[in-house]
Amino acid sequence: MSGEAFSDAVIETLRGILPPSQEPIPLHQPSFKGSEWTYVKECLDTGWVSSAGKFVDRFEKELSEYTTSPFAVACCNGTAALHICLLLSEVERGDEVLLPALTFVATANAVSYCGAIPHFVDSEERTLGVDPEKLLKHLSEIAEVRGNECFNRKTGRRIRALVAMHTFGCPVDLDPIAEICQRFKIHLIEDAAESLGSTYKGRHTGNIGRVSALSFNGNKIITTGGGGAVLTADKKLAEKAKHLTTTAKSPHPYLFNHDELGYNYRMPNINAALGCAQLEQIDGFLAAKRLLASKYEKIFSGLQGLKVFTPPTWAKSNFWLNTVILDHTHTQYRDEILKTANAAEILARPVWTLMHKLPMFKSAPRMDLSTAESLELRILNFPSSPSLVGEVSGNA
Amino acid sequence: MSGEAFSDAVIETLRGILPPSQEPIPLHQPSFKGSEWTYVKECLDTGWVSSAGKFVDRFEKELSEYTTSPFAVACCNGTAALHICLLLSEVERGDEVLLPALTFVATANAVSYCGAIPHFVDSEERTLGVDPEKLLKHLSEIAEVRGNECFNRKTGRRIRALVAMHTFGCPVDLDPIAEICQRFKIHLIEDAAESLGSTYKGRHTGNIGRVSALSFNGNKIITTGGGGAVLTADKKLAEKAKHLTTTAKSPHPYLFNHDELGYNYRMPNINAALGCAQLEQIDGFLAAKRLLASKYEKIFSGLQGLKVFTPPTWAKSNFWLNTVILDHTHTQYRDEILKTANAAEILARPVWTLMHKLPMFKSAPRMDLSTAESLELRILNFPSSPSLVGEVSGNA
Repeated sequence: MSGEAFSDAVIETLRGILPPSQEPIPLHQPSFKGSEWTYVKECLDTGWVSSAGKFVDRFEKELSEYTTSPFAVACCNGTAALHICLLLSEVERGDEVLLPALTFVATANAVSYCGAIPHFVDSEERTLGVDPEKLLKHLSEIAEVRGNECFNRKTGRRIRALVAMHTFGCPVDLDPIAEICQRFKIHLIEDAAESLGSTYKGRHTGNIGRVSALSFNGNKIITTGGGGAVLTADKKLAEKAKHLTTTAKSPHPYLFNHDELGYNYRMPNINAALGCAQLEQIDGFLAAKRLLASKYEKIFSGLQGLKVFTPPTWAKSNFWLNTVILDHTHTQYRDEILKTANAAEILARPVWTLMHKLPMFKSAPRMDLSTAESLELRILNFPSSPSLVGEVSGNA
Repeated sequence: MSGEAFSDAVIETLRGILPPSQEPIPLHQPSFKGSEWTYVKECLDTGWVSSAGKFVDRFEKELSEYTTSPFAVACCNGTAALHICLLLSEVERGDEVLLPALTFVATANAVSYCGAIPHFVDSEERTLGVDPEKLLKHLSEIAEVRGNECFNRKTGRRIRALVAMHTFGCPVDLDPIAEICQRFKIHLIEDAAESLGSTYKGRHTGNIGRVSALSFNGNKIITTGGGGAVLTADKKLAEKAKHLTTTAKSPHPYLFNHDELGYNYRMPNINAALGCAQLEQIDGFLAAKRLLASKYEKIFSGLQGLKVFTPPTWAKSNFWLNTVILDHTHTQYRDEILKTANAAEILARPVWTLMHKLPMFKSAPRMDLSTAESLELRILNFPSSPSLVGEVSGNA
């Protein structure tokens, strides 16, 4: 089949799922059919839209309950949450932080904000996330544990943390990764920006890392406009997260004392109000997204040359973004499919350019990244809004 | 008069302005009587709450028109806007940045985010902001211009920028400060977080610095919940600001390339919607705040031991926070007044603890700070919400 013919076949297959539309079909669109209006109006009516107000506390409490993470601290966005996770992991200037080359740029940027150096690791085809086997092999070769710390023998720098990102909602294989981190004295951070609602062996993502980051950007499974959160089971770390996100101000009714370098990373109350309403509907969103994912799997099963990505049996994905992986024989058709889909106003996209190919991270240390480099050429994301399977009820 | 008697007299005087209230009277409360509701609902109805959507563009355009600054770039908060201003001023790791010791901690924190070192300068009683005369004397003593750059002879470090903060809305004396910056090859940044609506010799603050930062936090004259903006007359700097605040992503319909270290500092659309509605009402807010300020001036004129702060004749303040300055003879009563007022649920507060007294900035270089140190003991802020002078109309 020619590139054009294959591309046309893919678009034709997509049309079997996607409703006919005069408008472009976005990759992921939020849905506001719950109490968004009521809660936001309450903010405006009471005048509490900003850094104080009950919805921030309530959103944190409800996030904690939903994820079963003992503490949740709301932030202004997922990047801020990642930055705080790294600070809580005692990442300091000149340290190295392990993270997948296959991730959104925020993961690597947050490492730079700490003055630390990203050290890129490979992903595996099973999860699209950190490959525990390759990680173990790599660390066995380059890392040395001295006392309670891990050092890169080649660069001499301390390796302080690993950020494991759950790609498109699919959990990485957390058990072996956590074991490797423990063995090498590396703090485990989960970048769960894309995986709210996903579970790993029955546990919500964000519960295995020492600290974890969530995102509620407009394209995520629930949105606060812009927002994020830090999850942790450690009360002291949660308190520290709250302190760092609120300019490190010492509590006092009117005195302004700040006891360390802090950040203005708090989530405004009006955004948290949106979050509370969205979280109430997450079961419905998840049900819709899982239904949509099963439709993708079914409809594409007849087409040779690609496979719909499905998570391992121990993982339950939120299917944030529906993902198709081209066969090695069909890699060369990726751009044609992207062009045709976008011309047809079906917003398809490739995965992010790998981190070590971006100019600011070109000289960062890395292991063999052959799987990520192969996946980069073969991944396609297709429209994944819950509304694509019809009306989304408030709760499933 | 004893401390208690003086303190009681101050509270009694305050009661002459403040309406009787069952609720605590906050320092500054926003007012949502315009189109907030309509615009926010439009965001929810259209699904555009996040990083894309028309209100961000509209808010930037309207901010630019209102301030007469050719370009405005919305950010997630004022701290982020300051950070971007410093990056646009080419502040690099190891540089020094001049800023007043008398400021909110965000000004100094943003300098630290760049890896630069705050260098504290004194304020003057006339404006509560940077003292141009002392600044000139200090730079004449310690600074050396080599080529197009300024160096601190004592530390050997480059001095890259001066951040002049308009305290409580009162513009600093920008003409001589701009002249000093030009002479010493230092970039001038206006921290106009508190001074939207204030003018210096007829020009809106934020127009004299090469770049300037605004804040729309919940306690500011207009609010977006959390928000800020960068103002500049330089198109290239405005484009760079937009690029840096949006993860430095190269424009493309679906490819993810980022060409430098970027930030997630964009303002969500739902917050910009609030901003558009608030900005429509700013003339009314300003009129109310100026009326309230004149009431403060009048009612306190009979009380010996303090003076209501009034800006110089060339300045028109937005009177963000009404400010009283204790006479040198009455410094010792500050804490008593704060305690009494807050016990009476009238939220009064002192000025921020001076920056060089905070643990993270203790070893930073500084000039003689005697005026700031005196002001720190004598400044009191009193309730300043526009609603304290009755209903605020949509437009004055």
